Order: sequence, then structure tokens, then C-alpha cells
Amino acid sequence: MKKKPLILVTNDDGITAPGIRTLIETMKEFGEVVVVAPDSPQSGMGHAVTLHQPLRLDEVDIYPDIRAFQSSGTPVDCVKLAVDIVLDRKPDLLVSGINHGSNSSINVIYSGTMSAAVEGAIEGISSIGFSLLDYSYHANFKPLVPYIRQIASEVLEKQLPAGTLLNVNFPKAEKFKDIKGVRVCRQALAKWEENFVERTDPNGRQYYWMTGRFVNDDQGDDTDEWALKHGYVSVVPVQFDLTDHHQIPFINRWNFHVQ
Amino acid sequence: MKKKPLILVTNDDGITAPGIRTLIETMKEFGEVVVVAPDSPQSGMGHAVTLHQPLRLDEVDIYPDIRAFQSSGTPVDCVKLAVDIVLDRKPDLLVSGINHGSNSSINVIYSGTMSAAVEGAIEGISSIGFSLLDYSYHANFKPLVPYIRQIASEVLEKQLPAGTLLNVNFPKAEKFKDIKGVRVCRQALAKWEENFVERTDPNGRQYYWMTGRFVNDDQGDDTDEWALKHGYVSVVPVQFDLTDHHQIPFINRWNFHVQ
Repeated sequence: MKKKPLILVTNDDGITAPGIRTLIETMKEFGEVVVVAPDSPQSGMGHAVTLHQPLRLDEVDIYPDIRAFQSSGTPVDCVKLAVDIVLDRKPDLLVSGINHGSNSSINVIYSGTMSAAVEGAIEGISSIGFSLLDYSYHANFKPLVPYIRQIASEVLEKQLPAGTLLNVNFPKAEKFKDIKGVRVCRQALAKWEENFVERTDPNGRQYYWMTGRFVNDDQGDDTDEWALKHGYVSVVPVQFDLTDHHQIPFINRWNFHVQ
Repeated sequence: MKKKPLILVTNDDGITAPGIRTLIETMKEFGEVVVVAPDSPQSGMGHAVTLHQPLRLDEVDIYPDIRAFQSSGTPVDCVKLAVDIVLDRKPDLLVSGINHGSNSSINVIYSGTMSAAVEGAIEGISSIGFSLLDYSYHANFKPLVPYIRQIASEVLEKQLPAGTLLNVNFPKAEKFKDIKGVRVCRQALAKWEENFVERTDPNGRQYYWMTGRFVNDDQGDDTDEWALKHGYVSVVPVQFDLTDHHQIPFINRWNFHVQ
């Protein structure tokens, strides 16, 4: 008899966020769910790991019939703790999210949610990051559930190739019918233009708040930004081999000879 | 008359680390150097950004004739602060490092040093991360200088293509002659296998220290790990488009239709 799939759930908004609650509920239909997630919000943590501080990891009783652990670490720490300490076998699936806010385009690189999924793929686990284009704590996750179910089901059945994970972003939707379907996309070549707001503290010293404007000059209709803008779910296959293989011949012609 | 190149220098070991000192000294030969670096060590911070805390940025007088700023932020924050607040024009070159410890293979993704260089590339700046396979504070950076000079000179002359930066790793060397030359490589497909050490605090609560073992099963002789092992400098062209383009046709055949 085939074992029930083991599914690891994590996020970067913290273990009690509505987004992860929706993901836990949906994943229960597929197998045994174990949650290892940060004890507080960790947005924008990227692929940070905690090397020079100790980590806490505590079992918590917040989801009925689900083994759940909160950690003081980053999302990537959570995946490492799950694999090394919590789980006795490699999970069949890792899902991260649902993030409150989209992680399309360049945001894949800043996102703790996506970095947790990347770490899953590095560990050889089929991994998916889910995000919704709505930053609100009270975002409506319900219309996404049929899509999450379908995407998770395909990944469990077909298995992702080694080195590949999925970055799934949802447009904001009031009801299921508002979503037009799924597009397999590439990451749009967009970026943030920062604008730091300068303030002065009561002691007369300056400090800065990071703010920014998202700028997308990528006009392609095969990008995740295009899909979201037009009401589609974007699915981007993501890799953690950062080598720009196509540039190797170009760089190879440079002169690196030192006398 | 052509303007002197403007060179932004950063790192993740902190603004006073010997590695960044070497880099500043070497870059002074090429143009005007401005330093914006973390005020304390930030190893393993990956591409983390500080979204929900204010940042400090203070000019410091530690390098003769060099404008230098320290920040409470991550290496990526430092690049953003440099571009938005400190510099009045886009630098011609960003160099990050020299990291105390190598950032070859999968370490590119955890490294604050490399993430700062990635951020530079996102901002459209020709960027290079330099790292030495020696974690010691007292590592010997001197033998690397002629190579750093040559690589920086090539980048300034030829300019990196948009979307590409360089990850340069040096083998440990006592003298210049110990280094065999430069190899343009791909990132080895290796990873860390974590082993958390469990301890108990004075209040009886458990905590964990992350430790790990680097495992490289990639036998290719075109990898950065191979180059370092055989005494060469590895140069890997790196990209921040994480799309696994080759998998798009495969994922496109999946069934994402929801009733």
C-alpha cells in the first residue's frame, strides 16, 4: 500500500497568518501535513539563514490534528529545521505561503516565502510557493483554493524535475469565476526603484525608511506580470542554478591573464 | 575628457573587515571609490531587505581620502541606500567582498556578499562579488590583488551584459605563484546537509545551532568547485532571472484546468 503523501507547509508571514491557514486546510485533503513556520513575520528575508545565533523551535497546538512548529528563524531556517529535526522522512511536497502580497517578477529574489520553496528544491523536495496579489491581512484566499488543489495535485502526480520549483501567483479575486485560468510564464524583468524617506530621531540622528515603486518595462505577454494584470494565475518554473550559462562563451573570450 | 570611473564597494563581513580593506585599496587605482557597507557582520543574509525597521546610514572616517558610510542594514540594503541616497550618479562598477570564506556553488544564494552584487546588477550596474576560500579574519588577501585588478579592468573595459554579474572565488594561497590562473565556470550543483546541534538553556528550554556539511556530488570539471580544488580562480557569470526557461514546455503540458 502506498504511503499517504507527507506535506511540509511553511511561509514568511508567520505561523498564524490567514494565508498559511488556507494552505494547511487545503493540503489536509492530500495527505499528512506538518507545519514548520516562523513565529513572527519574516517578509523580505530572502534566502537569509541564521548562522551566528541559536534558533528556537517549539511545537505549538494551534491547528487541530496537525503537527505544527514555530521557529525564531527565517523561512529558510524553518525548512532546514523541518528536514533535519522534525521530519523522519523527506516530504513528498513542500508548499510555502499563501503569501499576503505577490511574489512575481524580481520579488522572487527578496521573498522569504519563495526562498523557503527554493530551499525545499535544493533539498530535493518538490516545492511550490503560493502568493496572492493582495497585501491585506484580511485578503480573500477562498477563490484560489480550487487552483491550489489542482496545481498541488499535478505536482504530486507528475513530480517536478530536479532543480526546479514553482512560483505561483494569484490575481486578487472576489470569487472563483473572476480568475481566468492558469498561464505558465517567465519572470518579468522588472525591478524596484527605491525612495528612502529620511526622518530625524528625538536625539537628532537621521534614520531611513525604505519605500519604493515597482517599475515594469517588460512588455512581454509571456511574463508573470502580464498574467496577473490580465486576471490569470501565473506559474513560473524557478531554478536555483544561478549560472548565466549563455554568457560563458562571451566571458571566456576575456583576458584574465596576469603576468 | 572622460570622467574617472565611480566605484561602489560593499561587503557582508562589515565595513572594517580586512577583505573590504584590500578591495578598497585595489579599487583606488581605477577611479573614485565610495564605500557603503554594513556596520556589523551580515554573513548568510542572502537577499534580505529591511522592510519593517528603519535603517541607519552614517558617514565614517576610517579610510583616508575615501567617502565611506556604514549602515545598520543588510548588504542589499547598503546597495539600495548607496544608489538612492549616497551617490549622485550610477556607479561604473560595484565590487563586493572580499568575502572571508568562499561563495562558490550553492553558497551564492545564501551569501550577503553575492546578494549585494546581484542587487547591483538588478540596478543595472556592472557588478562583481569576490570571495576567498579562507574564513579566517587574518586570511592572506595579498596574492589575489593582481587577479582582482585584471578582472575589474576587463569588466570596466568590456562591460557586463545587462542581467549578468560575476561571482569570483579565490583558492587559498600563500603567494601569487600558488594560483594557477582563471577558469570561467558554472556553479557546481552541490549543497549543505544541515546538522543542528541541540542545547538546553538555563531555563530548561531547547535551542539549536545550525551546523552543516558541504556535499558536492557534481563531478564536472567545468564547475567552480573543481577550479578552486585545483588551484584556479573561478569566475561564474550569474543571473537574477530565476526562470527555469527550459522547463516551460514541460510544465505547459500539465493540466491546470479547474472546473
